[in-house]
Amino acid sequence: MSIEQTEAEKLSALRIKIDAIDEEIGRLISARAECAQEVADVKKANLPADADILFYRPEREAQVLRKAMERNKGPLSNEEMARLFREIMSACLALENPIKVAYLGPEGTFTQQAALKHFGHSAIAIPFSAIDEVFREVEAGAVNYGVVPVENSTEGVVNHTLDNFMGSNLKICGEVELRIHHNLMVSDVTNTSSISRIYSHSQSLAQCRKWLDAHYPKAERIAVNSNAEAAKRLKGEWNAAAIAGSMAADLYGLKLIAEKIEDQPDNSTRFLIIGKQSVPQSGVDKTSIVVAMRNEPGALHNLLEPFHRHNIDLTRVETRPSRTGAWTYVFFIDFVGHVDEPLISDVMKEVASRCADLKLLGSYPKAVL
Amino acid sequence: MSIEQTEAEKLSALRIKIDAIDEEIGRLISARAECAQEVADVKKANLPADADILFYRPEREAQVLRKAMERNKGPLSNEEMARLFREIMSACLALENPIKVAYLGPEGTFTQQAALKHFGHSAIAIPFSAIDEVFREVEAGAVNYGVVPVENSTEGVVNHTLDNFMGSNLKICGEVELRIHHNLMVSDVTNTSSISRIYSHSQSLAQCRKWLDAHYPKAERIAVNSNAEAAKRLKGEWNAAAIAGSMAADLYGLKLIAEKIEDQPDNSTRFLIIGKQSVPQSGVDKTSIVVAMRNEPGALHNLLEPFHRHNIDLTRVETRPSRTGAWTYVFFIDFVGHVDEPLISDVMKEVASRCADLKLLGSYPKAVL
Repeated sequence: MSIEQTEAEKLSALRIKIDAIDEEIGRLISARAECAQEVADVKKANLPADADILFYRPEREAQVLRKAMERNKGPLSNEEMARLFREIMSACLALENPIKVAYLGPEGTFTQQAALKHFGHSAIAIPFSAIDEVFREVEAGAVNYGVVPVENSTEGVVNHTLDNFMGSNLKICGEVELRIHHNLMVSDVTNTSSISRIYSHSQSLAQCRKWLDAHYPKAERIAVNSNAEAAKRLKGEWNAAAIAGSMAADLYGLKLIAEKIEDQPDNSTRFLIIGKQSVPQSGVDKTSIVVAMRNEPGALHNLLEPFHRHNIDLTRVETRPSRTGAWTYVFFIDFVGHVDEPLISDVMKEVASRCADLKLLGSYPKAVL
Repeated sequence: MSIEQTEAEKLSALRIKIDAIDEEIGRLISARAECAQEVADVKKANLPADADILFYRPEREAQVLRKAMERNKGPLSNEEMARLFREIMSACLALENPIKVAYLGPEGTFTQQAALKHFGHSAIAIPFSAIDEVFREVEAGAVNYGVVPVENSTEGVVNHTLDNFMGSNLKICGEVELRIHHNLMVSDVTNTSSISRIYSHSQSLAQCRKWLDAHYPKAERIAVNSNAEAAKRLKGEWNAAAIAGSMAADLYGLKLIAEKIEDQPDNSTRFLIIGKQSVPQSGVDKTSIVVAMRNEPGALHNLLEPFHRHNIDLTRVETRPSRTGAWTYVFFIDFVGHVDEPLISDVMKEVASRCADLKLLGSYPKAVL
């Protein structure tokens, strides 16, 4: 008998080891689900039997995912590890009360992907055809949460999510980010040295502007309805290229000639979770407010000064025309911190004193990944 | 201080317990991923560096899932436990080589659901618009596997999957089942005592025929393109109902007046995994064959007799007109067992001697759930 193990022997030994690990994982998942049931029982004990209790705690979930990633030493990526924990939590939670989520459809869009990334596949996710319908469903209590893109995404959302907050009492309960990469692709018949037309959605063209300026300064940029349509158009065009995701290349049999050409290396699309809940601190949080003011010289500068003085990190400022006409402009402002922190609450009071109106849209855990 | 713990204390203790469990789960998932890498290394050691090795083993995966369900004592359902293990395996496998899967699209269909149910969300799943395109992609090696519905599904597939096997060397590597429930729903304005029209897809109407005969014998049954369309139509119709899934009721604000009305309590739609691989025994397997023969009196009875004599469970027999014209009919036959079992191989030889042509479509693990 040879001292060296055969391939079959090695594989068999590894499989026995994997089976033993699986047995432990299964046992622990069951134990975790039992704990989740106990948590639900404790919460129910102090409430009337017919109370509509929501067992989902966004801040707690963010903490669990962050810990799972901190502890992770590979070989799985943090993203995969967080995804698995998301699914485990989703399954445990669905034992009590599966979460119902409305999202901006149709099915198969990035927003659906964001909803399932955030709530896991044990949640019930229902598509709606407009952002204000998603708001209405959450307000009416037909679903627990809504998922909407923050701004016009590459999928042709036309109305503006932020405007919907103006007439609504819903809160932002969380955010989701999906990383989106752009690639330049051509068909088999394309002569790559003579590309004179580049198709893509206008937003993707904008997101790759610098790269295109450097590499294809003379090519005509043609905006079409979606990146998938751009890829589809290439068929039979010998002097055209398209910017799209790698799935589109697979789908239409195209060849990638340049990958990850977006100007911002972590190009991502952001989505908001909307609900009725105010979310407690998770430790790494963001706050969104909307502020109304007259358009006077230096007004915005004056408004933002307290953030600057207290070293609070502004992550986004967006100006939108006011719908009511009473004020010239509204500003949507995102910053790092939670309204329950004394510093943040003080700064917000100061900001409120400098504008006509301030509305808190919500403090929520920063996107985990 | 009270002996009784407050709600906050109880919750805090439970959360500490959950965190400890999570730490163990994370450690074990990492250990499992390392084992999966070792498996890959062992396989690679004996092959040329550029060999296209497929690390996915359908029979092994089926065994792992069956064990996970056997060991499961709750509180999670076997379905949820299997789903979590599917995702863990999917993540471990993607470390080496993410599986690419072509499915009958568009996105958001049951076939996509089936593909992700079977391969987990770390697989790359690409939609194609026709079943023969899915076959071509797999044959060309652009993807590792294809997922196709076995028969006309409620989503409007018109060509017949089985016919594609006639001109192809692809094998059936697995099957997936999705359970599909039908419900009767009405809108707010409907007078439930005077329902005179019931909308649904023709297949759903057929699947609920007995229930409808018993409960709404006089209502007109109207077949429309999809169950979602049936639900949508109800708006404003005071004497109509629709048969659809519960998601459609949520989607269009309808009221369920009867649930799970399908005649077969485990109504499910079946999908096939197609690939180039012959799959070894998993312990609980099925085999699909296609048989060509002349349409003589008693021919089918004669053909099936060896199965009956050896007590082999036939799970499905379907007759299709032959395309070549040389033979009047072909029969697609599914039965329990694997072609590597001596008994099955003997029976197949006997059956082959009784017909003009017999082609093995594949032996593969029975759908796990």
